[in-house]
Amino acid sequence: MSQPVLVLIDPVTPPAQPIPAAERLRVQPADQPAVTVTDLGVTRGDGIFETIGAAHGKTQAAGPHLERLARSARMLDLPELDLAIIGEAVELAISEHAPVEHLLLKIVVTRGIEGSGHPTAWVYAFEGEDATDQQVGGIAVARLDRGYRSDVATTSPWLLAGAKTLSYAINRAAGREAARRGVDDVIFTSSDGYVLEGPTSTVIARFGDTLVTPPPEDLGILPGTTQAALFEIAESFGMSTGYRALKSEELDSADGVWLVSSGHQIRPVRALDNRELTRDRDLDARLLAALQGRAR
Amino acid sequence: MSQPVLVLIDPVTPPAQPIPAAERLRVQPADQPAVTVTDLGVTRGDGIFETIGAAHGKTQAAGPHLERLARSARMLDLPELDLAIIGEAVELAISEHAPVEHLLLKIVVTRGIEGSGHPTAWVYAFEGEDATDQQVGGIAVARLDRGYRSDVATTSPWLLAGAKTLSYAINRAAGREAARRGVDDVIFTSSDGYVLEGPTSTVIARFGDTLVTPPPEDLGILPGTTQAALFEIAESFGMSTGYRALKSEELDSADGVWLVSSGHQIRPVRALDNRELTRDRDLDARLLAALQGRAR
Repeated sequence: MSQPVLVLIDPVTPPAQPIPAAERLRVQPADQPAVTVTDLGVTRGDGIFETIGAAHGKTQAAGPHLERLARSARMLDLPELDLAIIGEAVELAISEHAPVEHLLLKIVVTRGIEGSGHPTAWVYAFEGEDATDQQVGGIAVARLDRGYRSDVATTSPWLLAGAKTLSYAINRAAGREAARRGVDDVIFTSSDGYVLEGPTSTVIARFGDTLVTPPPEDLGILPGTTQAALFEIAESFGMSTGYRALKSEELDSADGVWLVSSGHQIRPVRALDNRELTRDRDLDARLLAALQGRAR
Repeated sequence: MSQPVLVLIDPVTPPAQPIPAAERLRVQPADQPAVTVTDLGVTRGDGIFETIGAAHGKTQAAGPHLERLARSARMLDLPELDLAIIGEAVELAISEHAPVEHLLLKIVVTRGIEGSGHPTAWVYAFEGEDATDQQVGGIAVARLDRGYRSDVATTSPWLLAGAKTLSYAINRAAGREAARRGVDDVIFTSSDGYVLEGPTSTVIARFGDTLVTPPPEDLGILPGTTQAALFEIAESFGMSTGYRALKSEELDSADGVWLVSSGHQIRPVRALDNRELTRDRDLDARLLAALQGRAR
């Protein structure tokens, strides 16, 4: 693995007077401490993030990722972010990193040091792990009850459902529960039986020639940037696509289920709760190639 | 406010060979970066914490706090912690801090730098804010639906209900919702209408001469260290105490409701969802004095 790159951004909010990018971005060693113990990012998981993929140095869906970051910021009542300087930090991180096939750019914005009102922000660039085994061989998945009703984003907006926050302890715990069950990943379902999302991915199901994903705004889940790209690709293949609530049991009879994300691109679900699912290996391969080839 | 003190602990797990405490504890300036951007504490809110109060240099309920920290560690599948060295770090932080009436000691343990398997840990000592206004005048509180059923800790243990994790973005959002509603704090209720807890406090209700709090294990809430101390105090006053599930509406007709925590000790709820609650100012004052006087 090549050496990761860290770019600190300060300020990440629009400055009152223009400040040259060179003065706002600072490259420093990623293995040295960069965050204080009073930063709300670490004391409260109070911040947001995005992970953008870059294939051969070209970002994939950078615009949608930055827009989603801004959306998360609004949901957390964070100050307005200067997306332009974040985009510049991403490009700087790419240029400072050794050229690799699959780079990941993790953008983090925290609420900052408690009491400061001044967000802390950085871009961390690191080489993505090779996911070919799961992309080609598929993954085994278990469904886990996320505990929430499907309408919780509407009834209880303070639960931040659908914001990409740093408070991911539950997502990590779900990963450990997956390991205990001997599977590779999980799909969260609502307490009233609807498909939500994976801990770090969007769920897509195929019914005939139609790809379906749950509607993010209704269900309090994250709008998928890779899912949006995949829908465009599928439409270019002549398939139709759509958003609708999916009952959990619909997955069992789907003509294919995928988990998609910037980190792993696309992984076909080969088994769900220990039952084999239908797969179309030719379609899987075409979708993967198209996703990976997006920015080349 | 006096200068905060930071004590880093490494290793925080029991060492294979004894290491002198002096080599495991390092005092360093709290305003300098101490955490890397690859630490799972900041990237995923993947860690745990406790806040211990110290009155005039003497810790309050340090044992129960350390035991609860160990309990949270088990719930998150973190490595076993060496509670003795954490206790020494707390004492060192107290001795390094200027003497103050009310010191708070925040213990943080994260899963550490991703891939290292080596937790990051520290104690941060800072002077507690004067809470007299709320302790004496009482607070206005709103109830917020936490979105979970009351039995979620049993049905979905991966949701980490009842662990004190660094993933507190929702608790922070609840605080902002309180401000929007013009109240001082909130009480979370389950989606099926039971009283849970405050974002950073335990709920206690009085019915006649009995104090009641919801049972932590059943409801997936945090066992309160200050609540436990308060129950002992109330019993010494001749009151009885008990744990039972409380329907949300029972609070409206209670003979008193309090939020208790290490940070604020005890705050009487004077208004709940804009309705005045019954208060016994004499009892409030006696409970506060006894809690504050615990370690003197």
